[in-house]
Amino acid sequence: MIRDWVELNMTPGIGPRAAAKLLERFGSVEAVYSATRAELEQLRLIPEAIDTIIARDLQATAEAEIRAVRKLGGDILLLDDGVYPSHLREIYDPPIVLYVKGAWSECLDRPCIAVVGSRRCSTYGQNSALMLARDLAQRGVTVVSGFARGIDAAAHRGALEAGGRTVAVLGTGIDEYYPRDHKKLAEEILGSGGAMVTQFPLGTPPVSENFPYRNRIISGLSLGIVVVEAAENSGSLITARLAIEQNREVFAVPGNITSRNSFGTNYLIKGAGAKLVQQWQDIATELPPQVAAKLLPPPFGEKKNEKSLADRLAFVPEGLNGNETSVFKLLTADDPAHIDSLIDKSKLPISDLTAALLALEMRELVRALPGKCFVRKL
Amino acid sequence: MIRDWVELNMTPGIGPRAAAKLLERFGSVEAVYSATRAELEQLRLIPEAIDTIIARDLQATAEAEIRAVRKLGGDILLLDDGVYPSHLREIYDPPIVLYVKGAWSECLDRPCIAVVGSRRCSTYGQNSALMLARDLAQRGVTVVSGFARGIDAAAHRGALEAGGRTVAVLGTGIDEYYPRDHKKLAEEILGSGGAMVTQFPLGTPPVSENFPYRNRIISGLSLGIVVVEAAENSGSLITARLAIEQNREVFAVPGNITSRNSFGTNYLIKGAGAKLVQQWQDIATELPPQVAAKLLPPPFGEKKNEKSLADRLAFVPEGLNGNETSVFKLLTADDPAHIDSLIDKSKLPISDLTAALLALEMRELVRALPGKCFVRKL
Repeated sequence: MIRDWVELNMTPGIGPRAAAKLLERFGSVEAVYSATRAELEQLRLIPEAIDTIIARDLQATAEAEIRAVRKLGGDILLLDDGVYPSHLREIYDPPIVLYVKGAWSECLDRPCIAVVGSRRCSTYGQNSALMLARDLAQRGVTVVSGFARGIDAAAHRGALEAGGRTVAVLGTGIDEYYPRDHKKLAEEILGSGGAMVTQFPLGTPPVSENFPYRNRIISGLSLGIVVVEAAENSGSLITARLAIEQNREVFAVPGNITSRNSFGTNYLIKGAGAKLVQQWQDIATELPPQVAAKLLPPPFGEKKNEKSLADRLAFVPEGLNGNETSVFKLLTADDPAHIDSLIDKSKLPISDLTAALLALEMRELVRALPGKCFVRKL
Repeated sequence: MIRDWVELNMTPGIGPRAAAKLLERFGSVEAVYSATRAELEQLRLIPEAIDTIIARDLQATAEAEIRAVRKLGGDILLLDDGVYPSHLREIYDPPIVLYVKGAWSECLDRPCIAVVGSRRCSTYGQNSALMLARDLAQRGVTVVSGFARGIDAAAHRGALEAGGRTVAVLGTGIDEYYPRDHKKLAEEILGSGGAMVTQFPLGTPPVSENFPYRNRIISGLSLGIVVVEAAENSGSLITARLAIEQNREVFAVPGNITSRNSFGTNYLIKGAGAKLVQQWQDIATELPPQVAAKLLPPPFGEKKNEKSLADRLAFVPEGLNGNETSVFKLLTADDPAHIDSLIDKSKLPISDLTAALLALEMRELVRALPGKCFVRKL
């Protein structure tokens, strides 16, 4: 029953972990409310939580909450609903209740990528967030972010610029807009087929201890997370780590080593396995193949599949110089060629050969394999 | 005999590869000069080279060359000399003759790191090159670079600022300074215990086809190469690729994705396995352990080894906050702790736990292992 879920979620001291413990122990939310004080005490909840559950202090509050959410045009998703976002359900301790507003279902049906970063950011960071969000949204990706100032706002705005969808995950109640001057941004997000999402009851103010929970929802909803700028002790670094623990792809935009706003993102690339992003394609190629295939154009244009195999093998792309053409012709898509054999066959000095291979690689025509071998990309 | 090596090296059409072929076929330089025209023709050399070898056209020129080099205070190293730089000898086709000037032996006895990049570079690039070269040279690393304008010059200057040693590898003869206005730089390099190195005979002008050969010597002499700035089609990218083929460590300094000078370095990190560099330690940690140990300070100061094991295990570093201290105490250096067990034992919400682990990691106190496990660093 929805009321019991909302009531449990509103209970002081009951976060996602305590709720998960209760559900595991008693099997259902209804059973939690039938439990005895002694049974609840075994789970080492805080006394206030036990008192509130036993006394059912929040039953009427929860009923009023549900009415208020509906009046706002919102909805409440429960962890055991079929419509609860499936990616979010997979994480370590998903919120048991999710307040949503706007076209959440259409947003979450598409591949979701989080674009996040520092509130205090540089113009470079803002522009990069805007560009990446716009390029992703243009291709049907839903851009998820945290509705904060700085990088988050730029990410939402980039998606809006492209006429795309964007989801704002809040650290407050769904009736609060924080920061206040983002009210117009919220209206634009909702007006463009976007959505607002939070785990926090109505009226929850912006308190800092809630933001890590918001961050877990941001990455939980997404296939991957792009950190655009983050200083040394930035919350975005923690978000990135949580995303790694959630088995999400983590991407970071590099920046000058002299910029404190890029210290964290450079660190993520250097020390935490984040993938470096120069452009939206760098994100798309790392997504699951069926998603990537939808986003990325086929390498040789749309007619590729109509060509016969012989045509394709005889194909030499335009705009190659002499060395590049001869090296390209020496390569096949099937048998990796070792660099030594290419030196012999091409009769090129190793530096010219390497230059040609690198040029072909950067044009995505050739792929380098381990052991100094090279093949054509088909 | 040194004259024969110099003569062969001066022969038109005989680069390192053709020389290697000749040495392989005939066993020694002397034997090359005893070969018949028919024998030489089997190796498919250019006719001019064969004529020159048979006629010994350059015998007197080579003798004059040796005298001239000695008069300049330089020396000539031969591929089969014991003093020929051992790292350079390992590469695919090392130069058979190396012209040197200055304290080349003292320079090459130390660990060598190449710091290179574009001639046309930004102030950011110049500053980064200067800083990294200075920090490395301060710790006894010899900074190798290509004596060009831009990043190369900044790298040499950084080493000089630290009072360290630096090696300039030239694409010209050792008697030419290119660019001309680098004459003072050359004097400073030689005056500070540095050296100049080239494979090209005296009087060789700066022609662009010689620069790739210079680049191969730069990386060939070095344990690793740091690319500081490189545009999309920059020669530095090719140098980096050649360095990978020489099994050298390749490092790159990231930069803003909006800067064309950083396009190449970001690409190297993203697509070619170059390691991201924020500071000199990022280079040092990737060098062979015996080299790294000399450069890097021990983690807990010099007294570490005097401490008993019990002391070391009871040690809690200063400046940790409450969560960081409790998480640090839960970790050992021997048994990796899984994140789930840390959640249980610390009673911290996963976001706080992750924040604490990340802080410990960034302070180099804790290491993340694959599979979400963590251990103390000793």
